[in-house]
Parts: sequence; C-alpha cells; structure tokens
Amino acid sequence: MVKVLLAGICGTDLEILKGYAGFRGVPGHEFVGVVEESKNPELVGKRVVGEINVGCDNCSYCRRNLERHCPNRTVLGIKNRDGAFAEYLSLPEKNLHIVPDNVSDVAAVFTEPLAACYEILEQTHIDPNWRVAIVGDGRLGNLIAQVISTICHEVHVYGKHRRKMDVLISLGLKCFHVSEAEEFGGYDLVVEASGNVSGLWTAIRLVKPRGIIVLKTTVAESVSMNLSPLVVNEVVLIGSRCGPFTPALRALSKKLVKVEQLVDAIYSLEEYQTAFRHAESKEGLKILLKP
Amino acid sequence: MVKVLLAGICGTDLEILKGYAGFRGVPGHEFVGVVEESKNPELVGKRVVGEINVGCDNCSYCRRNLERHCPNRTVLGIKNRDGAFAEYLSLPEKNLHIVPDNVSDVAAVFTEPLAACYEILEQTHIDPNWRVAIVGDGRLGNLIAQVISTICHEVHVYGKHRRKMDVLISLGLKCFHVSEAEEFGGYDLVVEASGNVSGLWTAIRLVKPRGIIVLKTTVAESVSMNLSPLVVNEVVLIGSRCGPFTPALRALSKKLVKVEQLVDAIYSLEEYQTAFRHAESKEGLKILLKP
Repeated sequence: MVKVLLAGICGTDLEILKGYAGFRGVPGHEFVGVVEESKNPELVGKRVVGEINVGCDNCSYCRRNLERHCPNRTVLGIKNRDGAFAEYLSLPEKNLHIVPDNVSDVAAVFTEPLAACYEILEQTHIDPNWRVAIVGDGRLGNLIAQVISTICHEVHVYGKHRRKMDVLISLGLKCFHVSEAEEFGGYDLVVEASGNVSGLWTAIRLVKPRGIIVLKTTVAESVSMNLSPLVVNEVVLIGSRCGPFTPALRALSKKLVKVEQLVDAIYSLEEYQTAFRHAESKEGLKILLKP
Repeated sequence: MVKVLLAGICGTDLEILKGYAGFRGVPGHEFVGVVEESKNPELVGKRVVGEINVGCDNCSYCRRNLERHCPNRTVLGIKNRDGAFAEYLSLPEKNLHIVPDNVSDVAAVFTEPLAACYEILEQTHIDPNWRVAIVGDGRLGNLIAQVISTICHEVHVYGKHRRKMDVLISLGLKCFHVSEAEEFGGYDLVVEASGNVSGLWTAIRLVKPRGIIVLKTTVAESVSMNLSPLVVNEVVLIGSRCGPFTPALRALSKKLVKVEQLVDAIYSLEEYQTAFRHAESKEGLKILLKP
C-alpha cells in the first residue's frame, strides 16, 4: 500500500474521460508515494514510483519480463485497477522502484512518462547521425526531445503552441510550427507525440523514404487517412507505449532531462475539476494533484 | 528497346485506373520481353525482365542502389514512363535481368511481383519458428505465402474467395476465411496483401503484441480507422513495395515458387477492355496481355 504524495495528469487520462479504453474506476497512473504497508519491511517508509502494468506472472509475456503486454494484465488507473488520483494505491512489490534522494517529488512524477520515452530506445536503434523530428510540443513531446537529444544533435520539434515551444527553446531545442512541416522533410526518425489524430499525417510528411516513425499517440477517435505513402516510401511505423523505469530514474538523478519547467500548477485532490480543465488547456503543460 | 512478349495486369494497374498515383500514359509494369535495340550488343536478342524504377543516378538513394526510392525516379507504367501494355517499351540497361532458359515466358512475368515478396525478406528478419499469417488470397498474397513457406512451417492465409483459396490449398497452404480472424490471433508476423482498405484491420486483429505487420496494399481510397491498438500492443508496421529481382528469378528457376496455377487467361492487347474486366473479377487471379 502506497500513500500518494503527488500524481500527474496525462493525456491518456483526458482520453479516458472521453471514453478511451472504457475504464471505470479511479484514474491516474503517474505518481510518487511512500510505502505504508508491505510484506517487505525494507520497503516501508521508502519513497517510490511504480510501473503501471501488473501481469499474471504466468504467460509467455510475463516470463520474458514483458508484463506490459500480458493479455490478462491490470493497468493502474487504466484497466481493472484503481489509480493514483487518490490518497492510497496498491501495487505489487516488483512494480515499485525506490526514488533516489536527489530526485524531488515533482521530478519523480515524471518517471512514468520518461520511461515511455526510453521505450523508444528499447524498440529501435538510434544512430547519432540521424536527423530526428518530434511532432508535438506537449509534455511527452518535450521529454522525448530531451531524451533523444542525449544521443542525436539534430532534433527538431514541430509544435503549435507558442508557450510550449518557448519552454522547448529554453531547453535548447529547435522548434518549428507544424505548418512548416514540409513534404519529404527528410528526417530519418520522426516521433509522433502530438496527442492528436492529425499528428501521424504530419509525421508521414516529414519522414524520409525507408525512415522510421514512432507512434505514441493513443486517442479515442478514429481518423480517415490513406496509408499508401507508408507503403510507397517503405516507412517503418513503430507503436510505442510504456517503458523501463530504471533508465528514466537514472536520467532524472543525473539531470540528463529537465522536468521542473513542465509543471504549470499543483492542485489538491478536491480541486480535481479545476485541475482537469487546466490540463485540457492547449497552452498548458503538466498539472499535478496533491492528495 | 524491349519487344514485349507478355505483360501481367496487377492490382496497382486497377488502382491506377481509379486514379491512384495520378498517372497518365501507358500502364503495365510486369512483363517479359526480348531486347531489340541496345548499346550493349550482348543484350540484343536476349529474353529479359526489368526493374521498374529508374533513378537519377545522382541522389543519396541512387548511390546506395535504392533507385526505387529516388525522389526524381520514373516508374514503368506508374510514373512519367510509359509501361508494358504496348508492343515495345524502353528501360535502361542496368534495369534489365536476363531470364534463365528454364523459366517460361508465363513464369517470367511473375518476376516483378515475386521480387515484391522478397522485399519483405530484405526489410525484416523472419524467424523460422514464427507463426505467420497472410491477409489476402489473391495474386500477391499467394506468392508471399509461397515465399514465406520456404522459411516458416506455420503459414496461414486469410482469404475470402473460394476459388483462390482452393489454389492455395492445392499448393499445400492452410487457409481460413477472414471472418475466422480472431482478435489476439497471436501471429508473430502478418503480411497484409488483400488489396483492400479493410485488410489492415484484419492484420491488427491477428498480430500478437510486439509482432510485425508488413503492409503491401496501396489503394486510392482513404479509410477511417483507430490506430491505437498499434500503439498499445507496440506493433511494428512495415510499408513494403518493390523488391530485388535476382532472388525472384532464382526462385522461379529453382521452382521454389509455383506460378502457373495463377494464370486465368491470356488476352491480346486489342482485347484490353475484356482483360481488365476479367482482372477485376473477385474470383480471378492473374490475367496476362500478349501484344
């Protein structure tokens, strides 16, 4: 049992409110907390973050440490398991990671989305000489741009929102408005993290033939599109979701990624309606909830 | 200059008639012919097939022998270059491959679509232990099933057409009706070659988490779909088009792939209207044109 210290509102939470994944229960899957009860006495009192997928421990995915693809999994705040927008939550011991002392509570909340960025590195080789584009200037696009900048020197973010782009520029990243996304943009790798169905179309415009698109956006809505350019240009499209917590915590501890600039406001749990409205604002970045 | 002996009608030709690729000119890109004129006297009189993409010889793709992705390329019967539904066609010498004597004219016409099957092997590793599904029982689906059967023992074809499935069964392949395609079908690799916008949806149902979908279908029409399952299940989607002629000719010469069963009829060039109508029939396989 974990007492929640802080929880973050993610784009997926907003989609869940619109009906994505058909979840009923307490949402919230980004959190930092303190262990109050555990069979392992060494964990009690420790500050932790938690991997959100809980597998059956029995299937071929669980046996390969891929609980996040277990067909019978529960997912914190997303699937058959109450989440972090509460005073307490419960997760198996193996899902918990102790937060290093030099990582603040606010920074620790970003472990889960940052792990989703490191997932890209688990799924595909990234050549430091590649030209990389990120579609999306929001929370996730920002973190992905920072993570890939630890490898590649040419990372361009395509966004729409002046304020979010200013944050990216302050972090040393090069930004363009999506309307500047040229056909045959010639990028070796494009990461689509716009949270919007139109983002994939921008990514298809930007990627070079035989290039890679990593698709992060999950939305409730369907989109009408012609996928022929993927075939003609032999693009590889990689769906990408949750990732490994260890490199994410290490990046926070080593300050390879800066997250404090992304926090717009911290609300109490009672103010959840205001908090969600704020999180939906197009110019907003990260909103946190404090039980 | 090549005198065309036989040409094949492909799904792409039917899509071009509907407006795909905006091509105006003589269509046709699957052919076997005899060289009548060439700067290379050794080629004259030889029976040849030809790679359909003609690059600029100057760009980064052409320098890597990827003329098929040259941004300035012409494509036989598809883009800025008259095709094979004619008495003569013209291609650069480097595009031509001499047909081995033990490969018939009819078989040689299948070199181009068979090369498109070998393209899959160029793009991704295929583990012989994988369970593989092919969506589509038509010309291309049939050839892909045969090629992948040279590597994997568990290759299942999902089709819709009794007659086409009978041809597949006669070749020793296991067939299912697409309505039997189960969600979480658990295939490691699914090749979508249905020629239909709904094929990708079937492929998404069949593929296992972290599996691969190879997408072959190019159609003029857009489709409305929700791509979230690709993200949630971290599927890799590989667009795949034209491929290498050398392994295709070798497979025909070694009889690794059987193509004669796929030919429904041979029409003269004057009968092109009847031929195209026949090629459009849902139960038909390959229609050839003889100038």
